Amino acid sequence: MKTVAVKHISRVDGEIASRLGEIGTSSVHEAQGRTGLLKPYMRPIYPRARIGGSAVTILVQPGDNWMVHVAIELCQPGDVLVVGCTTDNTDGFFGDLLATSCQARGVKGLVIDGGVRDVADLQEMSFPVWSRAVSSKGTVKNTLGAVNVPIMCAGQLVYPGDAVIADDDGVVIVPRREAGTVLKASEARLANEEEKRVKLANGELGLDLYNMRERLASEGLEYVDDLDALGSFCGIDTRNRD
Amino acid sequence: MKTVAVKHISRVDGEIASRLGEIGTSSVHEAQGRTGLLKPYMRPIYPRARIGGSAVTILVQPGDNWMVHVAIELCQPGDVLVVGCTTDNTDGFFGDLLATSCQARGVKGLVIDGGVRDVADLQEMSFPVWSRAVSSKGTVKNTLGAVNVPIMCAGQLVYPGDAVIADDDGVVIVPRREAGTVLKASEARLANEEEKRVKLANGELGLDLYNMRERLASEGLEYVDDLDALGSFCGIDTRNRD
Amino acid sequence: MKTVAVKHISRVDGEIASRLGEIGTSSVHEAQGRTGLLKPYMRPIYPRARIGGSAVTILVQPGDNWMVHVAIELCQPGDVLVVGCTTDNTDGFFGDLLATSCQARGVKGLVIDGGVRDVADLQEMSFPVWSRAVSSKGTVKNTLGAVNVPIMCAGQLVYPGDAVIADDDGVVIVPRREAGTVLKASEARLANEEEKRVKLANGELGLDLYNMRERLASEGLEYVDDLDALGSFCGIDTRNRD
Amino acid sequence: MKTVAVKHISRVDGEIASRLGEIGTSSVHEAQGRTGLLKPYMRPIYPRARIGGSAVTILVQPGDNWMVHVAIELCQPGDVLVVGCTTDNTDGFFGDLLATSCQARGVKGLVIDGGVRDVADLQEMSFPVWSRAVSSKGTVKNTLGAVNVPIMCAGQLVYPGDAVIADDDGVVIVPRREAGTVLKASEARLANEEEKRVKLANGELGLDLYNMRERLASEGLEYVDDLDALGSFCGIDTRNRD
Amino acid sequence: MKTVAVKHISRVDGEIASRLGEIGTSSVHEAQGRTGLLKPYMRPIYPRARIGGSAVTILVQPGDNWMVHVAIELCQPGDVLVVGCTTDNTDGFFGDLLATSCQARGVKGLVIDGGVRDVADLQEMSFPVWSRAVSSKGTVKNTLGAVNVPIMCAGQLVYPGDAVIADDDGVVIVPRREAGTVLKASEARLANEEEKRVKLANGELGLDLYNMRERLASEGLEYVDDLDALGSFCGIDTRNRD
Amino acid sequence: MKTVAVKHISRVDGEIASRLGEIGTSSVHEAQGRTGLLKPYMRPIYPRARIGGSAVTILVQPGDNWMVHVAIELCQPGDVLVVGCTTDNTDGFFGDLLATSCQARGVKGLVIDGGVRDVADLQEMSFPVWSRAVSSKGTVKNTLGAVNVPIMCAGQLVYPGDAVIADDDGVVIVPRREAGTVLKASEARLANEEEKRVKLANGELGLDLYNMRERLASEGLEYVDDLDALGSFCGIDTRNRD
Repeated sequence: MKTVAVKHISRVDGEIASRLGEIGTSSVHEAQGRTGLLKPYMRPIYPRARIGGSAVTILVQPGDNWMVHVAIELCQPGDVLVVGCTTDNTDGFFGDLLATSCQARGVKGLVIDGGVRDVADLQEMSFPVWSRAVSSKGTVKNTLGAVNVPIMCAGQLVYPGDAVIADDDGVVIVPRREAGTVLKASEARLANEEEKRVKLANGELGLDLYNMRERLASEGLEYVDDLDALGSFCGIDTRNRD
Repeated sequence: MKTVAVKHISRVDGEIASRLGEIGTSSVHEAQGRTGLLKPYMRPIYPRARIGGSAVTILVQPGDNWMVHVAIELCQPGDVLVVGCTTDNTDGFFGDLLATSCQARGVKGLVIDGGVRDVADLQEMSFPVWSRAVSSKGTVKNTLGAVNVPIMCAGQLVYPGDAVIADDDGVVIVPRREAGTVLKASEARLANEEEKRVKLANGELGLDLYNMRERLASEGLEYVDDLDALGSFCGIDTRNRD
Repeated sequence: MKTVAVKHISRVDGEIASRLGEIGTSSVHEAQGRTGLLKPYMRPIYPRARIGGSAVTILVQPGDNWMVHVAIELCQPGDVLVVGCTTDNTDGFFGDLLATSCQARGVKGLVIDGGVRDVADLQEMSFPVWSRAVSSKGTVKNTLGAVNVPIMCAGQLVYPGDAVIADDDGVVIVPRREAGTVLKASEARLANEEEKRVKLANGELGLDLYNMRERLASEGLEYVDDLDALGSFCGIDTRNRD
Repeated sequence: MKTVAVKHISRVDGEIASRLGEIGTSSVHEAQGRTGLLKPYMRPIYPRARIGGSAVTILVQPGDNWMVHVAIELCQPGDVLVVGCTTDNTDGFFGDLLATSCQARGVKGLVIDGGVRDVADLQEMSFPVWSRAVSSKGTVKNTLGAVNVPIMCAGQLVYPGDAVIADDDGVVIVPRREAGTVLKASEARLANEEEKRVKLANGELGLDLYNMRERLASEGLEYVDDLDALGSFCGIDTRNRD
Repeated sequence: MKTVAVKHISRVDGEIASRLGEIGTSSVHEAQGRTGLLKPYMRPIYPRARIGGSAVTILVQPGDNWMVHVAIELCQPGDVLVVGCTTDNTDGFFGDLLATSCQARGVKGLVIDGGVRDVADLQEMSFPVWSRAVSSKGTVKNTLGAVNVPIMCAGQLVYPGDAVIADDDGVVIVPRREAGTVLKASEARLANEEEKRVKLANGELGLDLYNMRERLASEGLEYVDDLDALGSFCGIDTRNRD
Repeated sequence: MKTVAVKHISRVDGEIASRLGEIGTSSVHEAQGRTGLLKPYMRPIYPRARIGGSAVTILVQPGDNWMVHVAIELCQPGDVLVVGCTTDNTDGFFGDLLATSCQARGVKGLVIDGGVRDVADLQEMSFPVWSRAVSSKGTVKNTLGAVNVPIMCAGQLVYPGDAVIADDDGVVIVPRREAGTVLKASEARLANEEEKRVKLANGELGLDLYNMRERLASEGLEYVDDLDALGSFCGIDTRNRD
């Protein structure tokens, strides 16, 4: 592995990233064809955080947060730190001091496939973090990794400059060059969803709204009157329930 | 597997289910002989939700939420959707649109051995969900399952019409025909607990309240004065701690 | 295993334990040389709880909470129950009645390598718990364990009388005899951190604050201008991103 | 929970069960409509074991194997012990002494949603076990469970007398009353598979054998010549790979 | 944490350790009162390995195997390396070169709460390993740990010089000073087991051999004739199964 | 996601891939700078399999193996199927019929971040598989994925045509264009290792062979005579052990 830090990266447009953040991960994930989602073990350290920014990527070694310090110097307002590790590790790579340093440079938050600590302070500072674990476990500064290179984070490839969207549902990555297109698709999806929401709220069924009935029948869905008519299911007796 | 939807089911009495919901999972679980509990990986998406209703059961395929749409048509006010999957899967089978449709029909909440999304919206809507995961991962509508059949959900067998009790402690199923009896037992337990609570608050010990001392002695519990007297425990030296 | 209860134990100084609790797990863990931390699967049942007290240790058998009752009699104000189990188990060993009994004796909270229930009530009572799971699963009173012996809890050795520090970041154990020294080191660390915080807030970089640049260079960290200059990383093409 | 042992149960036909065992779990699972499979964490303690028999069901408490002793008296030649637990537990409920006792009564093997020990001896004895864990952890005999009742085992409902099929692929349950039908379907499937195997071995493609091409096209599968033509996939640049 | 290596340790008697190894983990674990067992995720890299030796303990940092090299110099014939890590980590800390070095000094095997690699070579060399994972992941030599200090390994406290017993069932630690007593108890247990084995092989029931019937009755075990008599169990209808 | 199949891909040189396979994952992983390793949950279905080939990549949907059929038509002798899934899933996507079809086309083996079945047959056929699970669970053919696109498999990015190296230690990916260089580095490493092996076998210490002593001292490693001199470690009393 090259132990390297890339100084200059092309960043996703800030407006676009912010707007994608407002729209949220689930809609954006759908709008870009159900891609870009990090594994669901990535959870926010406090509820209702919601960000969209440009990725500064960090590849760390287990139990070592040295590269995070290297990365912060390369950050700009609107960036989001995205940390991958060369192996599964839950140590506390990041805490309130690093968050202070991040906020001084306008960093919006952190996504880390590892552990984080000082979570109470981080919430007070309104510095959101999505992580695989919360842990006090201290880290060292002995082994080099890399900064602003393509990394794997929670099962997803992330390039520096990609858009990072994170909220209560999880974290989604949008490739920088596709952010504009994805935003359009997301906005369209939102409008369309609003319409559906009203109809569903008025009692219209998804079965009708999405014209599912015919296809369900052709696929072989059978309606039976009651459990007695069914008799049994997967070997489980369904009769004599009264 | 029969790909079937059962239209008419016998439901647990709504009053009974609601009251069981107020009493809560831990008391009800104990009152019915320590049975009916779903695995503890089933967690609420927000704190303090507390429901009791009648199960509409859904068996879905991994990554496919088609059957949820089929089920909603068969729901009545007071129902709770209970979703099992043919394999372990954390995809986001359910979100705010489906919740809107559910609320339009008076569905009280969702219990799903899978993933859920739009959790911030769901909390705003006060639509509680107990799930194994939170995930934006989109699902398809290609493969049939079944509705209102006996299903396995998080290690528990659930029949349509059974009472579903869920709160911060987890989820408990009460067989429909036993709901009345279990409610009586739960109420009795509550009264009895209240009495104990007062005594314990006044400093009385469980050892005395439950008459444990004699049985502890007969089982061989030995009291020693201090660690020096103990010498060692499981090979760990307990002496010289001062 | 000796089935024994130790009546008299030497306790960590209450003032020291309380102060360590205010300082918090991450700082204390660092101050004592990055030791004493329980595994990160130990999570609080509600946010913002923060305690420091003296351990009353309990070794329980799976699905059996009998020894908890034995332990409570041996508790004093300022104690914290620390429960280990002879095997991995998530049952609900502890609930609101036991918490009532604990509070009647001045017990500050519970750390349990197992499950807990009635978590909504426990939060209302302000009785904090750190556990590996939340579960309604009832337990029995049939098999003896031990009280106030050295136990293993979530990967950590705990002696009765040790200081137990717990907050949103997790749980840390400080050996009784080292508590005073660790407190001094923790206070020193806090002061020192405060200074750093101000500098970092003013935009000073950790790279400079900790004099990392030279060592990074000597270890071989290379700065490159951009991804095109990098060419590829771990076989991933980094060029043509625009 | 009733602490009960059922003395007389109706057993699946021995011939049928044995034949299902020869056919194997994957074919039988498919033949009965992809049902009856236990969770894949259930693994054999040694390779190439393959059995089919009639279930004697046991519900145990965590860390307690008392009910196993009760069950053995109720066993007949051709039976298979199937053990569920009231909670997740990996203790060593079963070892070479119990296996000796089982073999003396003609029991074919054990399926346990828990731990097993003496696995080297068990292999020497040719007593196969499918379990969630291997563990020396000793168990007690203090808390009652039940024998020959419907139990949940590794996510599957099992009735006493059901057919238990187990091999290197896992464990499948066939409801007693459906065993004959499932055997017919399994045999038919085998014959049919043999035919396919020959064709596939001769180079015929599944695409043609199963007439998939048209449906793939109608579902929208697109064939492109090469990665350059593709351009990118999920935001990953696929060009310039030479 | 002190970064230290202890040069001289008192070792368990070699004869005793070897004999305990022959007896095996499950018997030894029982003989010393069901203590000393490592978590069951510790598995052998190949079947039928079986050792008993004296622990040389190593505390490593995640992804760093430097201390293993330090430890080997301090090894003597009959020793077993026991490696704990400051956090959960599955990296490949140990491979065929280190095994070659170990064998040159008479080390019998390795127990590591981490990963191991070159497992095919290790089996050919007959160098047994019990680990939490198999992984090629390379490690560095940058961060100090400790050698021959008390460590936590897979949930168990291990002192240098303790007896390490490992086989197909897992790993058990016997405190050095208790090894002789535990050996006697283990031998007694073996003899006693042999006797039971013969009786059980001859069809005698554990129920009678251990005089369980009376206690089962007094605890409330009820025998019923058949499932129809039972009616239902945990809400599952047991009738009409024919 | 584009539902696409790429017909023509550039493949790694067959000789090179085969030779990398002989050298093995751990050496290759080290030789290419400790990169390319799949997560250690990927395990072989039988011991001693060892392959090196060119990746044909497949992206499947949970519970759906349709794309595998599409991929086989695009395979050539020397290829290895590498299957990623859009979510974590353990279903049995692949069995003996697909393996028969693969062998008819000269496919060397399968790497799948999912489940596999018929493992006994696959071993008899000498068709090696590395998977996250073994499961009989059947799959459907309803939802499109993609073939010969860059995929994520067990935490690693894989391009079609990349070299896939797999053995008892796990699975490593070598980017096609770097295979030649990595082979040279691997061969060099092997030679170098052989030399070390001889020295270590003759009792030379890694401490000396790698000149570690000075650096250990400068990093602060302290040698103490015995545990009494140490006094305590991490709060654990080390004295009075005799």
